[in-house]
Amino acid sequence: MRKRTVNKYELSNLIAERWSPRAFDPQKKIENRTMMSLIEAARWAPSAFNEQPWRFMVGHRGDPTFDKILSTLVEWNQQWAKNASVLVLNIGKKTFTKNGKKNVVFKYDVGQAVAFMLVEAMHHGIISHEMSGFDPEKASEIFKIPADYQPLSVTAFGYYGNSSDLSPELKELEFATRKRKNINDIAFGKMFGDCFKE
Amino acid sequence: MRKRTVNKYELSNLIAERWSPRAFDPQKKIENRTMMSLIEAARWAPSAFNEQPWRFMVGHRGDPTFDKILSTLVEWNQQWAKNASVLVLNIGKKTFTKNGKKNVVFKYDVGQAVAFMLVEAMHHGIISHEMSGFDPEKASEIFKIPADYQPLSVTAFGYYGNSSDLSPELKELEFATRKRKNINDIAFGKMFGDCFKE
Repeated sequence: MRKRTVNKYELSNLIAERWSPRAFDPQKKIENRTMMSLIEAARWAPSAFNEQPWRFMVGHRGDPTFDKILSTLVEWNQQWAKNASVLVLNIGKKTFTKNGKKNVVFKYDVGQAVAFMLVEAMHHGIISHEMSGFDPEKASEIFKIPADYQPLSVTAFGYYGNSSDLSPELKELEFATRKRKNINDIAFGKMFGDCFKE
Repeated sequence: MRKRTVNKYELSNLIAERWSPRAFDPQKKIENRTMMSLIEAARWAPSAFNEQPWRFMVGHRGDPTFDKILSTLVEWNQQWAKNASVLVLNIGKKTFTKNGKKNVVFKYDVGQAVAFMLVEAMHHGIISHEMSGFDPEKASEIFKIPADYQPLSVTAFGYYGNSSDLSPELKELEFATRKRKNINDIAFGKMFGDCFKE
């Protein structure tokens, strides 16, 4: 199923075709070398002082790490994320390694690395869906994540399955129109909040 | 000048060709519709509860907004960023609009949107370089950014110029080998920090 962006200005396919489906195919697996390409993409993201504050717990469906990550998700997410091929717990390091100082953009930089993974996933025909609905404390406990690191989100990766298998509530979301603010609402030319000339 | 990633696993070109140069061409401009494509890419990024916490001040070289953003940068960055075609101040909204609650992943989500801009830029042959070395308080004052919004970074966009025009210090950085942690250092399979089987 495709749900391309409704864009006014030209967009590359890797961006335009990405969306966040819930109908993952429970039969398909992601090959290890393909998953490595996704991590490779994250690896080459830019970051403040090249700190690279991103860390990833990677679980393939059927292995204990997958089940552990799944168990940290809110129930609403578990019902569909269980069919993903891979679940990744995205973690950020709060301080700079070189001097121990607080890194005010560590979450920002982890977000960039994960975005690169989503783009690379599209390149391999893999769909993705990120979740903030999970229990970070539970995740820290399960995986013995040190206090200087913070679990930030979980990404489900996999292949598109059958939307008919979704519950009525999930199916409604699957077919709902994608919505975004107008360009005028997010980009400004002179002062914050001004009427931007596109 | 190209400085492709040294990747072990396959990468899409939009990710593999991106790096953060400093030798911007001071003659070239980015067409407005092209800049709009970059913002369009950011616009379609995913975010927690679809909050879309990203806002952008966009300045083209020669206009007052460009000069204002430039003035917030540390001197080290000003010396090369002045030649960029466009400077974008990336701003995040700290709270959810629907209920006023703190959004713990707003920086993460702005990072994702900016990463989408970088990828879209590559698609248009545009180079980019992000900076955390700037004065967010000054930026808030200049652009009258409300307290609920936080300037997070500045991105320089433009076209590649001539590396010979760089100062010796900048030239050294321009030709330095790109470095990243190993995949084993950022991805884990069983416990945090374990020896990951690629």
